[in-house]
Amino acid sequence: MYTPPNKTQSPYLPFGDRQDAPFYFTDILSVKQFQRKDLDYIFGVAHEMSEMVRRIGTFDLLKGKILANLFYEPSTRTMSSFTAAMERLGGSVIPINEVRYSSVSKGESLPDTVRTLECYADVIVLRHPEVGSVATAAKFTRKPIINAGDGIGEHPTQALLDLFTILEELGHVDGLTITMLGDLKYGRTVHSLSRLLSLFDVKLNYVSPKILPMPEEVVKEVAEKNIVQKQYNTLDPVLAETDVLYVTRVQKERFEDLDSYEKVRNEFIISPEVMKGAKEKMIVMHPLPRVGEITMEVDDDPRAAYFRQMEYGLYVRMALLAIVLGKA
Amino acid sequence: MYTPPNKTQSPYLPFGDRQDAPFYFTDILSVKQFQRKDLDYIFGVAHEMSEMVRRIGTFDLLKGKILANLFYEPSTRTMSSFTAAMERLGGSVIPINEVRYSSVSKGESLPDTVRTLECYADVIVLRHPEVGSVATAAKFTRKPIINAGDGIGEHPTQALLDLFTILEELGHVDGLTITMLGDLKYGRTVHSLSRLLSLFDVKLNYVSPKILPMPEEVVKEVAEKNIVQKQYNTLDPVLAETDVLYVTRVQKERFEDLDSYEKVRNEFIISPEVMKGAKEKMIVMHPLPRVGEITMEVDDDPRAAYFRQMEYGLYVRMALLAIVLGKA
Amino acid sequence: MYTPPNKTQSPYLPFGDRQDAPFYFTDILSVKQFQRKDLDYIFGVAHEMSEMVRRIGTFDLLKGKILANLFYEPSTRTMSSFTAAMERLGGSVIPINEVRYSSVSKGESLPDTVRTLECYADVIVLRHPEVGSVATAAKFTRKPIINAGDGIGEHPTQALLDLFTILEELGHVDGLTITMLGDLKYGRTVHSLSRLLSLFDVKLNYVSPKILPMPEEVVKEVAEKNIVQKQYNTLDPVLAETDVLYVTRVQKERFEDLDSYEKVRNEFIISPEVMKGAKEKMIVMHPLPRVGEITMEVDDDPRAAYFRQMEYGLYVRMALLAIVLGKA
Repeated sequence: MYTPPNKTQSPYLPFGDRQDAPFYFTDILSVKQFQRKDLDYIFGVAHEMSEMVRRIGTFDLLKGKILANLFYEPSTRTMSSFTAAMERLGGSVIPINEVRYSSVSKGESLPDTVRTLECYADVIVLRHPEVGSVATAAKFTRKPIINAGDGIGEHPTQALLDLFTILEELGHVDGLTITMLGDLKYGRTVHSLSRLLSLFDVKLNYVSPKILPMPEEVVKEVAEKNIVQKQYNTLDPVLAETDVLYVTRVQKERFEDLDSYEKVRNEFIISPEVMKGAKEKMIVMHPLPRVGEITMEVDDDPRAAYFRQMEYGLYVRMALLAIVLGKA
Repeated sequence: MYTPPNKTQSPYLPFGDRQDAPFYFTDILSVKQFQRKDLDYIFGVAHEMSEMVRRIGTFDLLKGKILANLFYEPSTRTMSSFTAAMERLGGSVIPINEVRYSSVSKGESLPDTVRTLECYADVIVLRHPEVGSVATAAKFTRKPIINAGDGIGEHPTQALLDLFTILEELGHVDGLTITMLGDLKYGRTVHSLSRLLSLFDVKLNYVSPKILPMPEEVVKEVAEKNIVQKQYNTLDPVLAETDVLYVTRVQKERFEDLDSYEKVRNEFIISPEVMKGAKEKMIVMHPLPRVGEITMEVDDDPRAAYFRQMEYGLYVRMALLAIVLGKA
Repeated sequence: MYTPPNKTQSPYLPFGDRQDAPFYFTDILSVKQFQRKDLDYIFGVAHEMSEMVRRIGTFDLLKGKILANLFYEPSTRTMSSFTAAMERLGGSVIPINEVRYSSVSKGESLPDTVRTLECYADVIVLRHPEVGSVATAAKFTRKPIINAGDGIGEHPTQALLDLFTILEELGHVDGLTITMLGDLKYGRTVHSLSRLLSLFDVKLNYVSPKILPMPEEVVKEVAEKNIVQKQYNTLDPVLAETDVLYVTRVQKERFEDLDSYEKVRNEFIISPEVMKGAKEKMIVMHPLPRVGEITMEVDDDPRAAYFRQMEYGLYVRMALLAIVLGKA
């Protein structure tokens, strides 16, 4: 069997990199790999990125570096965000979003594909529909891989940008009450975010339709960190105490019949009326795209943070690229 | 309802831009927004661009700037042209031409998409199949938007490059006789070009099959500027006086039966034989792609300007990008 | 009829290029256009590229130059390789891989498409499903064209990278015994490689299923150069003497029935067991993608050169781009 490379001891590491820096040539695969101090480090770099972008737009930290953006399923948002992150750092991108038509349709294995791309690129961002596929791919390449989502598995950069948004918007995480709303059963983002938040001293409210609760497995993991978690089926009881309202989509298809969907749907739509019951400093987040679960009238509310969240995503991805390439 | 941003008074305008320059952070949506002095300005910049490209190929005027190339319907030509324009100015591009598969297929609204992209990019080029969609999108973003065609609506950069071609090839526009040939009813480019030409002292001939005339609405608008317009069904009566022959495609599908199509089609094909009846200094233009309405034998004729027209398009788009980003 | 441009005498050649250098503004269409001294030159540049990439990753030799990557059929590998090559030289890329949806589906001819792209780009890489189409396209543009594969026709950069791999891995080509294994009838790569190898003093073994032999036409051409060629149906007789084992895929679909396929398939799979019978310094090559014809257990063997082959491909393509643009 093929022996996976030990990336950080590879003889191929570029000369002049800060090889002793945290996460140098490290794959970013899961939120589970981060300790609180790691988050401090990453968010410190992300904050610097935000200041640099606001001041000068783009700079040449990664000039000459090449990112392979390998997407086995389409995601305009994530792909554009990584492309912009690399370009704002002066690097270049190889976009590969036609995978379904090409080598892969000829039957090539994912390991072979990443071993080919490592010949061309310095870092690989990979999105793939199968859970665990990115971790497997990472074992086969000497170049760092960043997981951009593998099925219902992990999407660590989303969770990191969610947490960074809270930090930048509210100044701290400890002491906050975070309420997650919507489909908590199938929503990958709320699972990862709950796990990350469990590193902090927070209170978590889960508000979902009865048939779409936060999975037992996640609740258990978070409970082990002594985090208070409460479950509800309506937002009313917890809105007033909420500091962060994290909204996700409730898909019609999850319900057995249209009737049961119609019964609950209004409970999960955020309107200006709902916002009246919220704290003046609460923020509303959403992983986007939204399809009606936050009305456009809310966009004008300064508490609507979901578009700023996209921008924080840029800074987090810039930080991760710079970090794994030893240039942070 | 969401309050559209006032782009030119935004606190987010980059430091160091020439903010008092014409069209700074202004959306380019329609030919109707231009006065004659605006065209002088834009074409002055475009001409400088042509000289720079011919002398040094590429230069770093927009280094560090990022263009989001958002195409909801494919257009190799327009997308490549904007990509080249941005790259020849030292900027970067986020190509988004897979829209149908992605966020949008998840039901995201166009306003949400452009508000996401403004987090990543400095300027957005948008092509969309629905009339008016680009103007709507422009209201929702703080970044300048350039219309790259919205259905049968506007395609202002095409009209600008058409006019710039005439100016560069013939040295002036006033006094010219411009003959438009082909399907004038559905051809978006001839509508916009007629409107732009009405700012000058020109004579317009419209030569089309009986069932495909220039729309009343356009004729009326142009007439208000006291422009002489004449309609014909064959080229013969006006070829000899024509300075600019603007050819468009006549699509078989527009006709009720093949017979009526076959009857007229030969009237609308430009061959070396036809060119014999034209002025020595006439130019032939075409928005491309052509499908037989100008034979390849004509390509060798120095009056065939349609490929040079593509090159002028590059300069016009470079000019527009530099202008809206305050770097002209 | 349109008169093809004489590229190397064009008045449009950029100022400052080394116009007297070999292959300046020359189309790269076929392996047949190269003499042995040409290969020495190209591989000399490719070797320099490899050293530059290993030392500094990327450099600005082609800064400001634009490559149009025009793919009428998808090929992740080849397209990514050219993109990386251009970006590692500091140039930019216009990716055009949506051709089927666009101008072409509107019926535009290939000559018109390349004449449009020459307005935007400095060099065009073209892949097209029809044999001879790239050579035709090349006649219509003033900019250099590189053939990235035209149907079962030519794919010269693949053949060049194959030969460069042998040279870099083994230090020389003369005196080697090269064994080609698998489907030699339909495999475009082995045909081109045989032709290139016939410029050297080598021995060629062809090992294929009876129904998939090296075509008579290729054998004849190679024989004219006094090269020893032998044909076999199993690897056994020649493995021990082989210096280069070039493996290609045997497709099930080529066989009349599954039985005859099953009978031969094991003869054409390379495993660690097979490798035991090979020279200590033999190299195994494969154009990739592979689908089982070399087992993953072989990847660990230092003689497995097929991923390094991808990397050599990058250097060869960098060399070709620099050469045709007069910057080598």
